[in-house]
Amino acid sequence: MSIDETKASPPFTFQRHVYRNLIPLHDTTSDMKPSNGLHPLRIRFIIALLSLPCAIGNAQHTLISDMDLLRWEKVMLGVWKASFGEIGLNPRDYAGAPNIEAIKALGDGLFPFAEKSTYSLLSPGRASIRLPLDATEKIYGLGLEFEGMNRRSNVYSLKVDHYGGTKGYTHAPVPFYISNRGYGVLINSPRRVKIHVGIGNRKDSQKPAPIDRTTGTNWSARPLSDAIEASVQGGGMEIFVFIGQTPLEVVQRYNLFHGGGVIPPKWGLGFWHRMHTQSSDKDVLQEIEDFQAHDFPLDVIGLEPGWQSFAYPCSFDWDSTRFPDPKAFVQTLDKKGIKVNLWENPYVAPTSSMYDEMRHFTGSHTVWLGEVPDYTLPDAQAVLLRHHQKNHLHIGVSGYKIDEVDGYDFWLWPDHAIFPSGHDAVEIRQLYGLIIQSMLDVHFRQQNRRTYGLVRSSYIGATNLNFVLYSDYYDHEGYVTALANASLSGLLWTPEIRSAKSGEEWIRRFQSVCFSPLMMLNAWASGTKPWSFPEVTDMVRNNIELRQKLLPYIYTAFYNYHKVGIPPFRAMVLEDSHAVPDEMAPASMDDVDNPFSEEQRIEVTDQFMMGPSILVAPVFAGQDERTIVLPRGNWFDFYTGTFMGNGEIIKIKSKLEEIPLLVKDGAIIPMLSSLEKTANTPPLEVRHYGTKENTFNLYNDDGVSFDYAKGDFSITQLVAKQGTDGKFKGTSSQLTNDEYTYGPIVWRWMTVE
Amino acid sequence: MSIDETKASPPFTFQRHVYRNLIPLHDTTSDMKPSNGLHPLRIRFIIALLSLPCAIGNAQHTLISDMDLLRWEKVMLGVWKASFGEIGLNPRDYAGAPNIEAIKALGDGLFPFAEKSTYSLLSPGRASIRLPLDATEKIYGLGLEFEGMNRRSNVYSLKVDHYGGTKGYTHAPVPFYISNRGYGVLINSPRRVKIHVGIGNRKDSQKPAPIDRTTGTNWSARPLSDAIEASVQGGGMEIFVFIGQTPLEVVQRYNLFHGGGVIPPKWGLGFWHRMHTQSSDKDVLQEIEDFQAHDFPLDVIGLEPGWQSFAYPCSFDWDSTRFPDPKAFVQTLDKKGIKVNLWENPYVAPTSSMYDEMRHFTGSHTVWLGEVPDYTLPDAQAVLLRHHQKNHLHIGVSGYKIDEVDGYDFWLWPDHAIFPSGHDAVEIRQLYGLIIQSMLDVHFRQQNRRTYGLVRSSYIGATNLNFVLYSDYYDHEGYVTALANASLSGLLWTPEIRSAKSGEEWIRRFQSVCFSPLMMLNAWASGTKPWSFPEVTDMVRNNIELRQKLLPYIYTAFYNYHKVGIPPFRAMVLEDSHAVPDEMAPASMDDVDNPFSEEQRIEVTDQFMMGPSILVAPVFAGQDERTIVLPRGNWFDFYTGTFMGNGEIIKIKSKLEEIPLLVKDGAIIPMLSSLEKTANTPPLEVRHYGTKENTFNLYNDDGVSFDYAKGDFSITQLVAKQGTDGKFKGTSSQLTNDEYTYGPIVWRWMTVE
Repeated sequence: MSIDETKASPPFTFQRHVYRNLIPLHDTTSDMKPSNGLHPLRIRFIIALLSLPCAIGNAQHTLISDMDLLRWEKVMLGVWKASFGEIGLNPRDYAGAPNIEAIKALGDGLFPFAEKSTYSLLSPGRASIRLPLDATEKIYGLGLEFEGMNRRSNVYSLKVDHYGGTKGYTHAPVPFYISNRGYGVLINSPRRVKIHVGIGNRKDSQKPAPIDRTTGTNWSARPLSDAIEASVQGGGMEIFVFIGQTPLEVVQRYNLFHGGGVIPPKWGLGFWHRMHTQSSDKDVLQEIEDFQAHDFPLDVIGLEPGWQSFAYPCSFDWDSTRFPDPKAFVQTLDKKGIKVNLWENPYVAPTSSMYDEMRHFTGSHTVWLGEVPDYTLPDAQAVLLRHHQKNHLHIGVSGYKIDEVDGYDFWLWPDHAIFPSGHDAVEIRQLYGLIIQSMLDVHFRQQNRRTYGLVRSSYIGATNLNFVLYSDYYDHEGYVTALANASLSGLLWTPEIRSAKSGEEWIRRFQSVCFSPLMMLNAWASGTKPWSFPEVTDMVRNNIELRQKLLPYIYTAFYNYHKVGIPPFRAMVLEDSHAVPDEMAPASMDDVDNPFSEEQRIEVTDQFMMGPSILVAPVFAGQDERTIVLPRGNWFDFYTGTFMGNGEIIKIKSKLEEIPLLVKDGAIIPMLSSLEKTANTPPLEVRHYGTKENTFNLYNDDGVSFDYAKGDFSITQLVAKQGTDGKFKGTSSQLTNDEYTYGPIVWRWMTVE
Repeated sequence: MSIDETKASPPFTFQRHVYRNLIPLHDTTSDMKPSNGLHPLRIRFIIALLSLPCAIGNAQHTLISDMDLLRWEKVMLGVWKASFGEIGLNPRDYAGAPNIEAIKALGDGLFPFAEKSTYSLLSPGRASIRLPLDATEKIYGLGLEFEGMNRRSNVYSLKVDHYGGTKGYTHAPVPFYISNRGYGVLINSPRRVKIHVGIGNRKDSQKPAPIDRTTGTNWSARPLSDAIEASVQGGGMEIFVFIGQTPLEVVQRYNLFHGGGVIPPKWGLGFWHRMHTQSSDKDVLQEIEDFQAHDFPLDVIGLEPGWQSFAYPCSFDWDSTRFPDPKAFVQTLDKKGIKVNLWENPYVAPTSSMYDEMRHFTGSHTVWLGEVPDYTLPDAQAVLLRHHQKNHLHIGVSGYKIDEVDGYDFWLWPDHAIFPSGHDAVEIRQLYGLIIQSMLDVHFRQQNRRTYGLVRSSYIGATNLNFVLYSDYYDHEGYVTALANASLSGLLWTPEIRSAKSGEEWIRRFQSVCFSPLMMLNAWASGTKPWSFPEVTDMVRNNIELRQKLLPYIYTAFYNYHKVGIPPFRAMVLEDSHAVPDEMAPASMDDVDNPFSEEQRIEVTDQFMMGPSILVAPVFAGQDERTIVLPRGNWFDFYTGTFMGNGEIIKIKSKLEEIPLLVKDGAIIPMLSSLEKTANTPPLEVRHYGTKENTFNLYNDDGVSFDYAKGDFSITQLVAKQGTDGKFKGTSSQLTNDEYTYGPIVWRWMTVE
């Protein structure tokens, strides 16, 4: 969707009087306290107050004289836009169209910034903005980050890169941030956004008084700042503001603005396994037999580079020795209920059958000596799609793993490369993974067939693209943090398993991936199999099975991702009643490790929510126990129904066989009671936890097509109600047709019986 | 010196026929082997060959069609220049003027690149160049780097920053590289140069054929490239090429082009100690007594932030409680032979006595809430100089430690800040440390008084500025590598001591700093004193004394830095006969740590040369032994005169009390025989090592002024000659007046007697 389309029919126009009547969010003269996310958007109407003085410290609010005021227009309920200059290649051209009805359903609200508090500046070769920030505000998001949640007091150079260099260099550096006060800001730019999140003080800003470091006690290397400032190299920016009653609602609105989240095909939520790069068709069949022999499920086989006749750069053509009859191979697997996913990177080898056509549309520089298609050109897209349809998709390949679209500078094309479209090399790099996802998405939608694949880079508006991010990075805790952070930017992440140093690490990593958007073993290089650590093999199998049994619950969570924008796996900061202990730990000066006595932030990065009711708290190798931060409300153990706590930090002893799962009071969790493939559908076990009444709308569809968009799906309403005798009773009713229901329902009262 | 001055009277004009007759350096069809630095500039004249085909692999040399040819002009003997577009704020405006006579003395040579092999491109918002690279060429330099020597196969984003982020982020990211084939390239730009050093391949370049990674054995994630490509964001570049018979000569020419190296005042080569930030004048006097009581020398006292009435940001004014009478204080120390050095960062506190004058010349953003002077404005420079002269310099302060001019993005001003001069914030940041050094240098030269100070960032052409770099980084091995790499870009570096976890680490770090350009203890935060580890106190004292005794040798080395551009402390790759074992160690794939089977480079980063003859090989805590790579020729142990090896890698047992020092055959090393301060000058001990005859021109001057530039210095020629009886005999003669000679000469034959 291009911006012009959004502008064409804005459902609401900008209302100046609403804008005027707001108290600036950076007002701290009021007695506002950090609201812990409960009521982040506190709005007070001030009568007849058109331009408010506000203060941090003692200074008066002053206009920033050398910048221009941003001019906002309302483009949709709760969505505003401002722009200046030319933004270049528009990332949102590759995103889904807004789900206007769903956005409407979220309601409206007030523009979150005070009048004359938002600024822009075009200076030679650079565009920058300045938006206000409250002294107590917390800022989340900025894409796929492996460390921390609250982004405040840092600078991020948001660059598509392999993770690990400068802050902000990552696979999906989405320039979208969320405030705990109930708004989010998207900087829609194809360039590397450099964003100063509450760090740095203009001399004419509301800033604290300096403190003498020699004698003062509260000196800080990062003094409080009253703004977020961001810049790009290039001549313009487009900025969107999304509001919500809670941070979750902000994320929902962002997701719905890009078409809502994905619903993966059901097979995509099964077990994935990737073959060794040198494997042949026969090796794959043998591997499938091995999985059966060890009683492990297998839903998707991923083929690594060697399925091609040439790779790094890629031919994209089947290797005739290892795969002499690709069509028969794919069909054989299909009959076994196993999908085929193909690895590729986008760099074209001279030996590729599409090389002669594609070489007219490639950039000045090669990657691994392969040419780099300029996929901003429709002609280049057409060459790839024709080739891939003929050779892969039309014979049944289910999707791709798009590798190396993130890259280090020493692998990818340089910033000064030239592309035939004339688009800037930096812009093309920032959007490359997004564009490839988008063009494949168009194909699959045209075929009315869902895909689910992997990609190593993504960007703005990828919410409705059926791809999951992964990385060569391998820190288990970082993986869990990434899973949580991804949810703040419309992204999915898999903490894939590649290898482990011990059985303990193996089961711990397996547990995390079982409770993630894509359950994949990618251990082809190490040769490790699910059963390679015999002491934990049964535990691995049980964890995979538990995940499989939770399919009705998880699939419904994805439906809600699509329909109302709620991420199925999401950061704790999106929990309405999450008591986030985001505090600063003071530090004393250490001339070697901490010469600036920098404080450290203590926050919750190692647990997340799955679906409406389950809190996942992975355990890492070496942990005998772990703490879990429980949001307010009663929480129960998933496995036993036991009460665990309420709005507090608990410490639990870890059991090797279990990943800690905690369940909200009143949770209704529909599960498959058996994974046996029999003629009769096994009963649907519906668990209820705690002592609250509740309702759960269970979603199902054909599992493979986009017909759900035309209303072809079933919703079964599950209701747990307390009778006059105090006993709970479960009922179900069909809110739609019953074409796609699970088996007969068996209620299980986990806590009250 | 501005470029226009250079252009005004070029001693030689560009000679096209010289340019034409060169064989391209990237020609590998000849049987050239890596020359190990012996004769790196192999020039073959090809008659009547105007445009040469050349090859890497099988491809033919082709013109790069979408770039422009660079047009070179000869600006001096062995120095060429090309430029295109506008470069912005010129770094070389802050550098010294070329020493044209000294450059002439280095002789002339041929332009190192083939015709039609150097390119430029101006694209929207970006300027880039492409220069050829031979398949076997090694590339060194690029400023103060803490890792590795050979920069090939990497991308460096040369940004003034604290070390530790993306490659190229460092305190002094000088865009100057040196080829082992005998030329160097300076990209004179105030912007962040992004340089691809033999990495990345244009599709129309001389590149190897791709290899299938699945079946091939020599697949590389970094295929051989035939070029160095570099770009800046902004509209132009100026490029200088310097040639030399050896890499050392290239560095000499670069240094002389910027006025030649510094000669520190003699006190600067003594022992430096920094006081606790809260120290008062009385504390300083007590500390001096403590040093005397422990029999440790003390030449410079450094005062940390608390000498000021306000710091971080700075008032630059004396604190009247801790230093009630600064003038008396400085004079008291002066009488004891101790100089005062003042810490400051450049950010101006509102309480500063120069604030009211300076605030008109500051940028839009503060640093630590202090204003940032725009020192590209002469008015701003004048405010600072007036203040500093009145308050510090005219009462005898010897110099400064200029901190925090490197910074992280989260401390310094943002890229989008606005400065009153209109210069770009990125350019001002890149040059900030350089400009401050330069303006202080002007002051000291006007006063005919040498300074020696510290600075945390530097840049192009800082060769003749009396400042030494330092960092908050603290890896001992990295410190030694930095010391070596600094020498490739006209920089000096001190591996200052701050603290240690053991006596062993303490003495090891002390040894390294004793054999560096600035011998400083900066342990005020940890409170560690030279005698804090009693088990090594005598060793520490002995190492300091050895360094002090070597003053005549080291001071002469600095004279040669100034006069002929030879760095007094320098990387082994600048040694003419250094057999550098720069090899690649193959690696197997590891899906966690090395998924791309990347090779690792093995090279010598932990030893360096001091003066003409001494090889310093620091030992690091935990090492019982270490290897030393000996250049060709016989080498002897400094302490005993024992023969140690010749052009080989030796392994030595480490002694805790000694830093390994190896001496060249024929070395003449003049040393003070005693550090006692007596009425009679103690004799000068002149050591001779090995079995070669030799000559050493010993330099001396008044030690404090710039009168040496007017010829006011003494040179004593020391000659070691073998008599007909085979016995060595030492003689000395005065090549100049004898105003500044050391005491009577005593020869000591370390090896032959």
